[in-house]
Amino acid sequence: MTTRLSTADSNFEELFARFLTTKREVSEEVGAVVAEVIARVRDEGDAAVIDYTRKFDRFDPAATGLRITREEIEAAYEAVDKPTVEALKIARDRIEAHHTRQLPEDLRYRDDIGVELGWRWTAVHTVGIYVPGGLASYPSSVLMNAVPARVAGVERIVMAVPTPDGELNPLVLVAADLAGVTDIFRVGGAQAIAALAYGTETIPAVDKIVGPGNAYVAAAKRQVFGKVGIDMIAGPSEVLVVADPDNDPAWVAADLLAQAEHDTAAQAILITTDASFAAQVEEAVRTQLTTLPKADIASASWRDYGAIILISDMEEVPALIDRIAPEHLELATDAAENILARIRNAGAVFLGRYTPEALGDYVAGTNHVLPTARSARFSSGLGVLDFMKRMSLLRAGVDQLRIIGPAAIALGRSEGLDAHARSVSIRLNV
Amino acid sequence: MTTRLSTADSNFEELFARFLTTKREVSEEVGAVVAEVIARVRDEGDAAVIDYTRKFDRFDPAATGLRITREEIEAAYEAVDKPTVEALKIARDRIEAHHTRQLPEDLRYRDDIGVELGWRWTAVHTVGIYVPGGLASYPSSVLMNAVPARVAGVERIVMAVPTPDGELNPLVLVAADLAGVTDIFRVGGAQAIAALAYGTETIPAVDKIVGPGNAYVAAAKRQVFGKVGIDMIAGPSEVLVVADPDNDPAWVAADLLAQAEHDTAAQAILITTDASFAAQVEEAVRTQLTTLPKADIASASWRDYGAIILISDMEEVPALIDRIAPEHLELATDAAENILARIRNAGAVFLGRYTPEALGDYVAGTNHVLPTARSARFSSGLGVLDFMKRMSLLRAGVDQLRIIGPAAIALGRSEGLDAHARSVSIRLNV
Repeated sequence: MTTRLSTADSNFEELFARFLTTKREVSEEVGAVVAEVIARVRDEGDAAVIDYTRKFDRFDPAATGLRITREEIEAAYEAVDKPTVEALKIARDRIEAHHTRQLPEDLRYRDDIGVELGWRWTAVHTVGIYVPGGLASYPSSVLMNAVPARVAGVERIVMAVPTPDGELNPLVLVAADLAGVTDIFRVGGAQAIAALAYGTETIPAVDKIVGPGNAYVAAAKRQVFGKVGIDMIAGPSEVLVVADPDNDPAWVAADLLAQAEHDTAAQAILITTDASFAAQVEEAVRTQLTTLPKADIASASWRDYGAIILISDMEEVPALIDRIAPEHLELATDAAENILARIRNAGAVFLGRYTPEALGDYVAGTNHVLPTARSARFSSGLGVLDFMKRMSLLRAGVDQLRIIGPAAIALGRSEGLDAHARSVSIRLNV
Repeated sequence: MTTRLSTADSNFEELFARFLTTKREVSEEVGAVVAEVIARVRDEGDAAVIDYTRKFDRFDPAATGLRITREEIEAAYEAVDKPTVEALKIARDRIEAHHTRQLPEDLRYRDDIGVELGWRWTAVHTVGIYVPGGLASYPSSVLMNAVPARVAGVERIVMAVPTPDGELNPLVLVAADLAGVTDIFRVGGAQAIAALAYGTETIPAVDKIVGPGNAYVAAAKRQVFGKVGIDMIAGPSEVLVVADPDNDPAWVAADLLAQAEHDTAAQAILITTDASFAAQVEEAVRTQLTTLPKADIASASWRDYGAIILISDMEEVPALIDRIAPEHLELATDAAENILARIRNAGAVFLGRYTPEALGDYVAGTNHVLPTARSARFSSGLGVLDFMKRMSLLRAGVDQLRIIGPAAIALGRSEGLDAHARSVSIRLNV
């Protein structure tokens, strides 16, 4: 049953706290299996990758080659309809334009005693992008992962995508090509993550791996973290729609279902001040479900994890948002800017009545790879900075060393690190 | 034996590749033990934390209380010498001044069709800082972790530090207090990480955990990653000194030993063009070791992991640096700026002959928490951004939706996500 809460209820705090900690994923214990896959790929390279692919994806990459060829990419362009390619190009261009604004600035400055400090940002050299196979193989996600990498200046963008039974959505290849992916391999699962982390004869070792995947992929990323960089561990997606009664209930229902259709573990939440408006939204959800191709998934998600939270006053909203820390937040109210100024935890905020989340999923230019499962408390959506790193810079002369060196000597000695102290004192002849 | 390589040798590539992959740490398999500790702390709270602390730290926190009191902090100020406190204040102020420059800017703009895009940065609300006990309990590291959090605007900074046998370095408490830490608990190990991630009756749950630790702490951080944010997994430290023969060999030797004295697994590497200069440095290392309190540690590090790489030409340096991707890089040469412009992988760069790494360890203002074990290929030193996150912002009106909505509808349908398409089309009456 869709959860119904009201802040006016005396036990709201207890019910809301329980709602926040509801698990939407069964965490599978796949760590041991994944560790074995990683060890074999590290030791045996291509042979292990080919072996696992035969077993899990039921085709022989030794026959096709692990690498997807230029000819296959050209064939993909032929296989898809032109308007969709044009839509991908619009999305690509807008994502690129927005992400270019995220390029950070270098800094060099002299402080008041003449010490030079600063930093220089550089791109990660080689990045691996994991793209799930099957149902969740979304061309839009290829753009969202690869375009920021290219904007950052990554020289080599290596994509791994499983092709179960040898099949692949041609739009995924087109999106990869439009986004500037440099190498594509037909390999998935933990074996793909292992190959990207350690390299094989055919697949280059990368410096960082991004992209969503199933439990095996997530466990593999966790295990190779440190050897390479990884992005966040993606969980099931969620939306929180804050809507006043001036909204069209059908629009709000459509937005809730756009989240619910992703996955039975997805979560759509409505916060509103008006019980009869809430009832109208529920009715509209029921109506729209009757004509939705993914009605099975969406109705399960809405039933098991959907929620309507009635509030007495919009003043209650900011605190609720920060506790939910939603991946997506729609503020379909005239008070949107006022609420925005008072919150801190949300992956992406969609302001006003004409900004459905789906716009951000595809063509707005913002990124749709966002922190799920309350991780907006501590992390950001994917962006250019995820593909860059900052070198810290420092330069002192003898005059500066004379001024601040004695404090360094004192601290070095206090920590029992006399060689630290000496490396300063030897330059000062003290 | 300290490694000696020369780029002029015919087998240099093979030897250098082997050198790069030398493991300096035995990875302990502590995952299962740590999983049990985390589960117990999550389920039993304080009782489990107290129980583990009795067992591992050999004192009874039920008697003292888990929380370190204001009175204990005041007593710590009394117990330490005043010049060291002054040195800590100099360090704190300089770290704060430099990190304030890292505060990111928010952005709102309208693109050419009137879509409003942007982002807003906010601080993580509550952060946990782990500080190791015993030998590696460095007050300077407390400053390096806590000051950037405070600069970012973190409201609650919770420190966990083990106090084996009830003992604690008073300078650690003073540093925490100077840095603005709000809560300090005498607990360490995996039990501390679990308590910070899940909260107990006494210890608040945090949103992100930073700070170095032993194998148990590192494994615990890896396991709670996702529930909370974590920083990098710190490995043994390293320095690469690029020095031309115009340097004083004794200065370069002092810098190499300042790294080597940290840990037998630390690594100090010298790159130079001049074999006789290299020999003078080695001789100076031997001489200085005779008067170094931590000579045992430093000589083991220099013997087992130290290296001298002879090059024919400074032109070879940038490529070597990027492959080593050192945590610390000293460029003790007039060509420092030229080299800097041509590299991408280093945690922190110390430019010129008067910038020993130890300056950055303590009082320069830059952060000393830096990417180790070649992870400078994909990550940055600790900074203000590690304690902030970026909300993505989007606002469209009906006019903008008319322009880019159709592309979103096309992509939604191409991905089989009809509710996504509908959430746009319903607003356009199409």
